[in-house]
Amino acid sequence: MENIYRVNMTDMTVKQEDVPEEWALLGGRGLTSTIVAAEVPPTCHPLGPNNKLVFAPGILTGTPSVQSGRLSAGGKSPLTEGINESNSGGTSAQLLARLGIKALIIEGLPKRDTWFNLHVNKDGIAIREETELVGKNNFAVIEAVEARLGKSTGILTIGIAGEFRMLSANISVKDPDSKIRSHGRGGLGAVMGSKKIKFITIDAEGAPGVKLADPDKFKIAAKTFAKALLDHPVSGQALPTYGTNVLVNIINEAGGLPTRNFTSGQYTAHDKISGETMRDNIVARGGKPKHGCHAGCIIQCSQVYPDRNGGYLSSGFEYETIWGLGADCCIDDLDIIAKADNIMDDIGVDSIETAVMFGVAMEAGIIPFGDGAGVLRLLTDEISKGTPLGRILGNGAGSVGRAYGLTRVPIVKNQSIPAYDPRAIKGIGITYATSTMGADHTAGYAIATNILNCGGYLDPLKKEGQVELSRNLQIATTAIDSTGMCIFVAFPALDIPECLPALTDMIGARFGVAFTVDDFIALGKKILKLEHEFNNKAGFNNAHDRLPEFFSYEPIAPHNVVWDFTDEEIDEFWNF
Amino acid sequence: MENIYRVNMTDMTVKQEDVPEEWALLGGRGLTSTIVAAEVPPTCHPLGPNNKLVFAPGILTGTPSVQSGRLSAGGKSPLTEGINESNSGGTSAQLLARLGIKALIIEGLPKRDTWFNLHVNKDGIAIREETELVGKNNFAVIEAVEARLGKSTGILTIGIAGEFRMLSANISVKDPDSKIRSHGRGGLGAVMGSKKIKFITIDAEGAPGVKLADPDKFKIAAKTFAKALLDHPVSGQALPTYGTNVLVNIINEAGGLPTRNFTSGQYTAHDKISGETMRDNIVARGGKPKHGCHAGCIIQCSQVYPDRNGGYLSSGFEYETIWGLGADCCIDDLDIIAKADNIMDDIGVDSIETAVMFGVAMEAGIIPFGDGAGVLRLLTDEISKGTPLGRILGNGAGSVGRAYGLTRVPIVKNQSIPAYDPRAIKGIGITYATSTMGADHTAGYAIATNILNCGGYLDPLKKEGQVELSRNLQIATTAIDSTGMCIFVAFPALDIPECLPALTDMIGARFGVAFTVDDFIALGKKILKLEHEFNNKAGFNNAHDRLPEFFSYEPIAPHNVVWDFTDEEIDEFWNF
Repeated sequence: MENIYRVNMTDMTVKQEDVPEEWALLGGRGLTSTIVAAEVPPTCHPLGPNNKLVFAPGILTGTPSVQSGRLSAGGKSPLTEGINESNSGGTSAQLLARLGIKALIIEGLPKRDTWFNLHVNKDGIAIREETELVGKNNFAVIEAVEARLGKSTGILTIGIAGEFRMLSANISVKDPDSKIRSHGRGGLGAVMGSKKIKFITIDAEGAPGVKLADPDKFKIAAKTFAKALLDHPVSGQALPTYGTNVLVNIINEAGGLPTRNFTSGQYTAHDKISGETMRDNIVARGGKPKHGCHAGCIIQCSQVYPDRNGGYLSSGFEYETIWGLGADCCIDDLDIIAKADNIMDDIGVDSIETAVMFGVAMEAGIIPFGDGAGVLRLLTDEISKGTPLGRILGNGAGSVGRAYGLTRVPIVKNQSIPAYDPRAIKGIGITYATSTMGADHTAGYAIATNILNCGGYLDPLKKEGQVELSRNLQIATTAIDSTGMCIFVAFPALDIPECLPALTDMIGARFGVAFTVDDFIALGKKILKLEHEFNNKAGFNNAHDRLPEFFSYEPIAPHNVVWDFTDEEIDEFWNF
Repeated sequence: MENIYRVNMTDMTVKQEDVPEEWALLGGRGLTSTIVAAEVPPTCHPLGPNNKLVFAPGILTGTPSVQSGRLSAGGKSPLTEGINESNSGGTSAQLLARLGIKALIIEGLPKRDTWFNLHVNKDGIAIREETELVGKNNFAVIEAVEARLGKSTGILTIGIAGEFRMLSANISVKDPDSKIRSHGRGGLGAVMGSKKIKFITIDAEGAPGVKLADPDKFKIAAKTFAKALLDHPVSGQALPTYGTNVLVNIINEAGGLPTRNFTSGQYTAHDKISGETMRDNIVARGGKPKHGCHAGCIIQCSQVYPDRNGGYLSSGFEYETIWGLGADCCIDDLDIIAKADNIMDDIGVDSIETAVMFGVAMEAGIIPFGDGAGVLRLLTDEISKGTPLGRILGNGAGSVGRAYGLTRVPIVKNQSIPAYDPRAIKGIGITYATSTMGADHTAGYAIATNILNCGGYLDPLKKEGQVELSRNLQIATTAIDSTGMCIFVAFPALDIPECLPALTDMIGARFGVAFTVDDFIALGKKILKLEHEFNNKAGFNNAHDRLPEFFSYEPIAPHNVVWDFTDEEIDEFWNF
């Protein structure tokens, strides 16, 4: 029996509610976005009493399927001021699913200036006052909570950035090694901070687990699905071998690796920060080249990156972070980037927002390009301490751009543009422009077809077909984000015919209903339109579906190209 | 013969152009908004190469009519990201009009990192490199320029805030006493700073002057108009006697004086900052209780406010500034407020944006409420120096709210709400919500009819009729802002039947056309809709026509009222 839990921080109550029939087949992004659209006033202040923070495991989370352990978090984003869904690995999603918690809705603001934690177990949810760990960062919280409650406890926590309600604050999720995964984008850590919840602990002892309506059908589909993942060259080979950072050399070669705050598409020192170099370092130093962010992951794109002495430096060390501090900030030292990544995990800031922000801060002259020590200092002495400069930086790239009156500020809907230049890889530019989340590569990963030859090939330098590509990918991704599956299942889903039907068969078998690929696409369309409608009511219109102006008048090397879509071409996106 | 001048800062050219026929009867706000709507891409970056800065004297500026010396400045606002028109007194408008300059359009950005000044005279406009006065503030610029070019030179200048491209930066205009009036709201000083123009000088020696098509008709109308101004109790008595600061006691009595960052509607120390106290100080210290901001002003609402020793402290010392630092920041000392006003003039920041910002900064805990010395210190040591904290503060109330994660941030379209609480004086709330300029009391001064019994009376605590009142006022104000008239002509225009026809007769006599009150209203409607359309294309929709959420859930003393208009009620505004 699944339930909705509603925690009200104003009157300090917890309610257990039945799942409304219309939410029965929803999970993950589909459910968080549906709840936010239904219950959050679109024009409310994101840090005020009327915003809500919603967590939901995916439809398939907690089942025996591989790759299904992602947790969705949703709310009105304080960064974009639109709807936000950000999903994460870690152990919490599966624990919540096993407890039968379909969604956890946190609403209201405490009346007193006191911090709290929430403890979730089979008997319900307790709201407890928290003093000891307030002001502490994420690794300290995880260590202390594990000492209190044991290693098997799931933990969702905010670092000091969330306490400061910084717009780059993420929500950190304990991973199987007691390290950190993140609901990174959109600043939901600030929403959790506004509600004065320092952390949420989850104890699944005695949990009923997830019931499958048709276990046999599920098993067959799950096997087909897992095989497809292992058979595909990206999910089966490239990602497990080099992690996501396999992309540095590929995107650099394509001329789409934004460098020195988006002033070039190639980085001369790309070799020093590449996935190949990273793997060599990991192997030479005795780290882990493969690692999963949740139980049941067979792609294992993660890793544990050690320092020169073999000690822990970082994990979940992703291409976008490495690109951002590497190429975009011109820091050609993986160890410094790993150290910064670890600090960002600890204080709880989105590493994409923060890395892009540092590129803008370098353009502003706060520190010079290439100044890795300066980045570490700004993280620890400014952002961590909430100084005025720290507030500017901790609120992201747009904040720095506004504070210093700059025009070369790579953001859409106030969220940083990640690691793929939209001038040289035009499909991803359409995703940045139109995504309901603000600039977000994961929303419709056109790199797949523009660069990686997945789902066919579309010339990245040409406009033709890119709007349709991004639209199809965003629809499918919205549905995938609802399943609890990691986004990398999209690669086999694009190329291996059995993959997507196996995924939808699992959904059907989970609930005992017929669920086809058409149903899956219909789900994606419905949720995407719902999010778009929320954003329009929150104050967005087509003028927000635009890239920053500088992309249209600053050509980028080596292809010497600008962003050249007309408004009308972009606005075709929403015609579905 | 009137001309349009176009200065291109990218290729350093000046073009003199004929006035297009459709602009012939336009001036002031009507002309700047028309040019901005026609020539500025609505989604451009306000500090980028595609924004323009436009100056235009009013239709009647340079004629013998009283009150007609206002200059309009227009562009895309870096503060609101919508259209901006801000008008100011001072001597420049009449000099430009006498030179036959209908509009000065400044476009592009310099290619080199060098500062410039523009010199305007009867032979055209020269672009000159400027080094000496870069980094200097406004009073130093005025002093140095007068030494270079003589006392009769008109000067438009930016202080250090404009050089820093801060969003509260204004454009300062030399007044008849070589003191300062300001294009205050909307941050156009940052646009001038982005174009690297430190100041503009205007020499009207040998200027042809403004030709009147029918001087006799003009003279008769001008006499009727001037009489109406002198006959009305607000423009003829209250404003000349106490200045705009007559309002402190009136608005306090009405329970609509926002106090302690908008948490109460009355200020216990109102007497210490009132217009009556101000007048007593001025008289006792030998200052000037009456003063005009431009030649031909007969209202003389301005004053020169001296210090205890009779030395200059400030002038153009307005109610909104005094309210903001006084009631809203709880600083009960007029001398400290005057000192702050003078610094704000000097560094070139909008005193409304800055005063409201300090209230928010006090709420953030940066300095305590009531800390006048702290305000002076933040102005001189932080904003003036462009420190990180100075950048946060210099970018206005919204910037401080976002930096510190606050929800009680009184802004609309990112511009500060001025000195009248919209919960207790509901008509002005409709103006704040719907104005194309962001929160702006001058856009449709409903205080007139809600509080001052001008144009009838409408209960400020009731919703009935307020939307229509604000609509009518905004339409009329848009037209008045096009004439070059000071906004205070609205009081007699509302109450004295001969006033508005005399104004339109002057326009007709100026151009030798029939120009009726209906034409005047049609002009106001047309320009207001044009501005609204620009804003919608720039990314606004109805969701931006809203007051901050806290007004709806925080009742204000003494009337214990909230902001209770529905979205549908507000959106009725645009049905005309």
